[in-house]
Amino acid sequence: MLQDYLREVADEVGQGLERLLPPAGSGSGRLHEAMRYAVLGGGKRLRPALVMAACETVGGDRRQAVPVACALEMIHAYSLVHDDLPAMDDDDLRRGRPTLHKAFDEALAILAGDALLTLAFEVLASHGVAGGVEPQLMLRVIGEVAWGAGNQGMVGGQVEDLEAEGLQNGDLPRLEHIHRLKTGALFRASVRAGALVGGADDDDLEALDDFVRHFGLAFQIADDVLDVTGDADIMGKATGADARLGKLTYPALLGLEEARLRAQTEATAATKALLRFGQRAHVLAELAGFAVARQG
Amino acid sequence: MLQDYLREVADEVGQGLERLLPPAGSGSGRLHEAMRYAVLGGGKRLRPALVMAACETVGGDRRQAVPVACALEMIHAYSLVHDDLPAMDDDDLRRGRPTLHKAFDEALAILAGDALLTLAFEVLASHGVAGGVEPQLMLRVIGEVAWGAGNQGMVGGQVEDLEAEGLQNGDLPRLEHIHRLKTGALFRASVRAGALVGGADDDDLEALDDFVRHFGLAFQIADDVLDVTGDADIMGKATGADARLGKLTYPALLGLEEARLRAQTEATAATKALLRFGQRAHVLAELAGFAVARQG
Repeated sequence: MLQDYLREVADEVGQGLERLLPPAGSGSGRLHEAMRYAVLGGGKRLRPALVMAACETVGGDRRQAVPVACALEMIHAYSLVHDDLPAMDDDDLRRGRPTLHKAFDEALAILAGDALLTLAFEVLASHGVAGGVEPQLMLRVIGEVAWGAGNQGMVGGQVEDLEAEGLQNGDLPRLEHIHRLKTGALFRASVRAGALVGGADDDDLEALDDFVRHFGLAFQIADDVLDVTGDADIMGKATGADARLGKLTYPALLGLEEARLRAQTEATAATKALLRFGQRAHVLAELAGFAVARQG
Repeated sequence: MLQDYLREVADEVGQGLERLLPPAGSGSGRLHEAMRYAVLGGGKRLRPALVMAACETVGGDRRQAVPVACALEMIHAYSLVHDDLPAMDDDDLRRGRPTLHKAFDEALAILAGDALLTLAFEVLASHGVAGGVEPQLMLRVIGEVAWGAGNQGMVGGQVEDLEAEGLQNGDLPRLEHIHRLKTGALFRASVRAGALVGGADDDDLEALDDFVRHFGLAFQIADDVLDVTGDADIMGKATGADARLGKLTYPALLGLEEARLRAQTEATAATKALLRFGQRAHVLAELAGFAVARQG
């Protein structure tokens, strides 16, 4: 059932992205090709699913949220492109394909990332002008997305993650802080943006904040576990990278079994935060289960 | 007189940036320090001046435009940081100081650039929510800025500029196309954004488009001329770089004297486009003169 939903969302968002991304074979050099390579190369479309499901959870029509979901996916894609660069994580493989700077070159990877981040905000602004969403509400959405993606969110988390490499004396609070920024902040922005478009009130947003905080932890712990136990073929990238880089991870701090248990505990807490929404929250609840049960 | 205006704008925008940039000594690692280094290290504040002067040219109150001017300056600063990276122009010096990746490191330069671009949109969105500018108008401003900064504007121009390096058979139309994107599009966004905040109608915007197209050419031709004739001490960066990189430039295509004359012709055309605004346009007119007469 969740698989059906994820497939539907991937279709709807895929069509949206196809329409919103600049066409290949136009524009400056291979820039548009690089942008499309970064965004259209698969991936779980997890942030779009969070946007759409959060919109429906508060009673909204998820079709209203498609451009918002596309913008979040563009931001996620840009962050992967920049994270993979030689000066950062220096990864050669992503989703089973060469990373962007390997498939094209480093300059184009930096610039395609910049262009995707910029286009995300253009998409959000246009949706507010022409999409039937209240302008005032759309400005709030843009603010939430920028906050989650910027120095107090995702980019800040990436800085701290790089600094924590090889750190011997890391502890759990520090690890959670890094992940709350690096992945948690954009999850939060996805959920809040979708909910705002769907007509959420402050109480809705508070409950969803609670949900997404636990969801993000569950997802990240499971990610760390997968880096130890996962199948590189299914994941489309090399496993064991965290250990090689001496990264602070949950299995390293807690042990593998304890980390698995902790992921499940967080998924439970995430689900509990959804009770006020009743049956309308079932997709978000299933996403919490998926965050810990996934194979890649 | 223009110098006084530029100084006032630099003060107002400097105070705005000081307030809008995250405080040093807070946040993730040295990220905030790097962001401040990139933005607060001087510079002509030309884009802010265009924003503010365009706002006044159409009869607006330039204080309304300060956050918009700050956002444009953040975007300009991010673009310089990324352009200076080893994978791009590989510059060590900017405004008389080490470039960001030299003063900090390459990863932080990429991330600080990303964070500045993101913060620019956060600032614009907040100004629409709390700043007394119509939300609908602010969404239009965000759209204009994103368009000017993205794949169809500045980033697209940087891609084409990199591709044109060492090109032997470049011609004038191609050079103008590159500059229209690389520097012209953000000038245009600055002028349009300032004018929109100031209450411009469609005829105002059309005249200002005409102004800024000629202004951008005048500025860029003068820039190329300065790279040949300028004083490295005044400019705060090495001169002669274009020739070393085999870049397509106006002096290379037209000869130095013809390039100088062409810059002046463009400044005249820019000024002519301002006639409909009368005396209120005097700062924009002086900026057109400054674009060609400056020493750095």
